[in-house]
Amino acid sequence: MRFYTRDIMIRTKRRMEIIDVTRDVQRVVRESKIRNGLVNLWVPHSTATISVNENDSELWEDILDALQRVAPLEGNYRHNAKYGWSIREQNAHAHIMSCLIKPGISIPLEDGGMPLGTWQSILFIEMDGSRSRRIHVQVMGE
Amino acid sequence: MRFYTRDIMIRTKRRMEIIDVTRDVQRVVRESKIRNGLVNLWVPHSTATISVNENDSELWEDILDALQRVAPLEGNYRHNAKYGWSIREQNAHAHIMSCLIKPGISIPLEDGGMPLGTWQSILFIEMDGSRSRRIHVQVMGE
Amino acid sequence: MRFYTRDIMIRTKRRMEIIDVTRDVQRVVRESKIRNGLVNLWVPHSTATISVNENDSELWEDILDALQRVAPLEGNYRHNAKYGWSIREQNAHAHIMSCLIKPGISIPLEDGGMPLGTWQSILFIEMDGSRSRRIHVQVMGE
Repeated sequence: MRFYTRDIMIRTKRRMEIIDVTRDVQRVVRESKIRNGLVNLWVPHSTATISVNENDSELWEDILDALQRVAPLEGNYRHNAKYGWSIREQNAHAHIMSCLIKPGISIPLEDGGMPLGTWQSILFIEMDGSRSRRIHVQVMGE
Repeated sequence: MRFYTRDIMIRTKRRMEIIDVTRDVQRVVRESKIRNGLVNLWVPHSTATISVNENDSELWEDILDALQRVAPLEGNYRHNAKYGWSIREQNAHAHIMSCLIKPGISIPLEDGGMPLGTWQSILFIEMDGSRSRRIHVQVMGE
Repeated sequence: MRFYTRDIMIRTKRRMEIIDVTRDVQRVVRESKIRNGLVNLWVPHSTATISVNENDSELWEDILDALQRVAPLEGNYRHNAKYGWSIREQNAHAHIMSCLIKPGISIPLEDGGMPLGTWQSILFIEMDGSRSRRIHVQVMGE
């Protein structure tokens, strides 16, 4: 079994935003020269996450709106109260959504490609930007 | 390492519904003759998803209700407004929930079986039916 | 390819609570002597789940509050009505959140360790305690 790991670096610009990273992941998969196995993506952050859906910037706003219905930015959070002196730590909403969505995803790798559907893009979801972020990519297989 | 891949075809009948696919997945696992490794399920759609929970049709209605509290069918979505001419594209609610739940799940494979608990069934969740759907199953291991 | 599997046993004390199991998982990973591959965690329950986020007990209360906004404990559920004679089965809220969050997570294993970020702990989420619970750990790789 072979392994290939790389980090995809991202610079987010807004408090909450979605960025399509499909091509970055595909590039790492190509570089790995691994043909069959699994592509394991891991976001080593607790206020951002990764998922898969359509590349549609209007839809992305709808998604961010829905996340804020579950965990509003200006909610009454114990985490935020505890760090009330720090404007940087008013981010319980982002922790909550990251915990709910989880920071990883594993995608099958077959004949050198991922079986993504026509309307599936790999999406990095920033919920407490702007920040420097990282997606850890592990390709395993043969 | 060996690989075995198959598609499970599904014909959904309602706008939102849950279908138990445990036996279909178990059949693919058996066919694979792989005894230990990982069963990676991938739904190549952006308005459906897959998860695990109890086989209980009343509970399934409760789950679909909860999904609609997070993303109501008749919400005010930018995605739906953009495609207002197309009744088929009034489906932002389904994209949102698919993005939140994610389209894949990886289940350990041990001695030819998945360690599912007594109350765990593999559930396909349709959120924008009726449609022809597909679950991509990749069994990897030895 | 090598496999190593162990169960982590947990005794939860409250109806809903979050428990940091990072060290338990790390101990199993160490015991496995597997250096590179994947750590697949699976909770064989349908009213509990597993995720990753910060070790912060105030934040955990915020997370449990948010889960209850999506699926309130005292909601009007078909599942609960059906089992109205059983106080133990008034747990649709827990099934719903387990279905949404999913019972598994796969974490890359590299050079004997998991690439968890500074603020990432592995969290077991009890939603229908108190109960005896189990996390099934499968380490695969070489």
